[in-house]
Amino acid sequence: MASEKGVMLLDFWVSPFGQRARIALAEKGVQYEYKEENLTEKSELLLKANPVHKKIPVLIHDGKPVCESLIIVEYIDEVWSDKATLMPSAPYQRAQARFWADFIDKKVYDCGSRLWKLKGEEQQTAKKEMIDILQLLEAQLGDKKYFGGDSFGFVDVAFVPFTSWFYSYETCANFSVEGVAPKIAQWAKRCMERESVAKTLSDPKKVYEFVCFLKKKFGVE
Amino acid sequence: MASEKGVMLLDFWVSPFGQRARIALAEKGVQYEYKEENLTEKSELLLKANPVHKKIPVLIHDGKPVCESLIIVEYIDEVWSDKATLMPSAPYQRAQARFWADFIDKKVYDCGSRLWKLKGEEQQTAKKEMIDILQLLEAQLGDKKYFGGDSFGFVDVAFVPFTSWFYSYETCANFSVEGVAPKIAQWAKRCMERESVAKTLSDPKKVYEFVCFLKKKFGVE
Repeated sequence: MASEKGVMLLDFWVSPFGQRARIALAEKGVQYEYKEENLTEKSELLLKANPVHKKIPVLIHDGKPVCESLIIVEYIDEVWSDKATLMPSAPYQRAQARFWADFIDKKVYDCGSRLWKLKGEEQQTAKKEMIDILQLLEAQLGDKKYFGGDSFGFVDVAFVPFTSWFYSYETCANFSVEGVAPKIAQWAKRCMERESVAKTLSDPKKVYEFVCFLKKKFGVE
Repeated sequence: MASEKGVMLLDFWVSPFGQRARIALAEKGVQYEYKEENLTEKSELLLKANPVHKKIPVLIHDGKPVCESLIIVEYIDEVWSDKATLMPSAPYQRAQARFWADFIDKKVYDCGSRLWKLKGEEQQTAKKEMIDILQLLEAQLGDKKYFGGDSFGFVDVAFVPFTSWFYSYETCANFSVEGVAPKIAQWAKRCMERESVAKTLSDPKKVYEFVCFLKKKFGVE
């Protein structure tokens, strides 16, 4: 790995975490080599680059690995700092951006997985929780264009990959994001007007096919 | 809350998360008002300042709340940037510091709680996991004085409050930190030579009394 030069991303196509890194790199206009991982048979390179968590995404820059998606996005923002600044400059706004990105990190994926993994009452609990999460994020977004204001930034990068999972969440748990959080639905459309997002996000129908594959794999009917 | 001025910390004495904020403030020489919270009857101020997680610590600076301990420490480092820099300046080292602080955040408290909450085989599993965690951190520390090198920094602040819980972990699960990770034990002693740490960390015997109180509360014999 020490001999690797340039920028490489170890990733998996549908991963919202990997997509965060891809969107940040696209916003910065960084050229990189994309390596799709087989998560049932992880590469030697992945295991060497992320021996602690053994997870994608990993950004390898000049032979040095950076792991954990939000840390990767901050790293990208700090290294390629001359263009498309993602993190605000004022400490309080930075803390707020980190808070909401962390909130998304802790809540959305886990709750979303419970929407398709569980049934009956447990699924209803997860659905109620997802609606709460979306409405909290909606209140935070308010009437702003993006989470940080007029510019696409850190919280947008953290959250927007999950919008391609909305169709799966809605279909599995029978609710409408537009119905419960219309401003989030509008924000998702606005983000999709950006090339960095449009070219990165998976087709929601493909995500749903993937979720159906996972349901089969985990024995969920 | 909008009328609050200055710096205030909502906290709970034995919390390793709260102690991170206290150590960072002490390193910077920031004067602040400390407010002990009753976690079974949280104050209006706490619920208003951290409506999302309703948890301590919360730093209130000029009336504005900052939540989540690692975010608070980065905020303190950015606001009072003229003294005792905690975060390295180079992007790669910053990413590494964030990675290990995040690792500590995700692993140590949760695994530590399982050491006193569980019994038998489940406790043995948690003990094995804790030893793995300590040895991973030991390998990362290596022969350096602090995690970031010669200066006390972000990862040290993130980890050192847990050292006052070591006695409880050792007593509940019957192992010795010094035995499994001698360099971590030495590092803990080195950190205690700093005033910021010595005046903040709880007495390990008091922590153990608190753990015994929790065991009773949760019906663990």
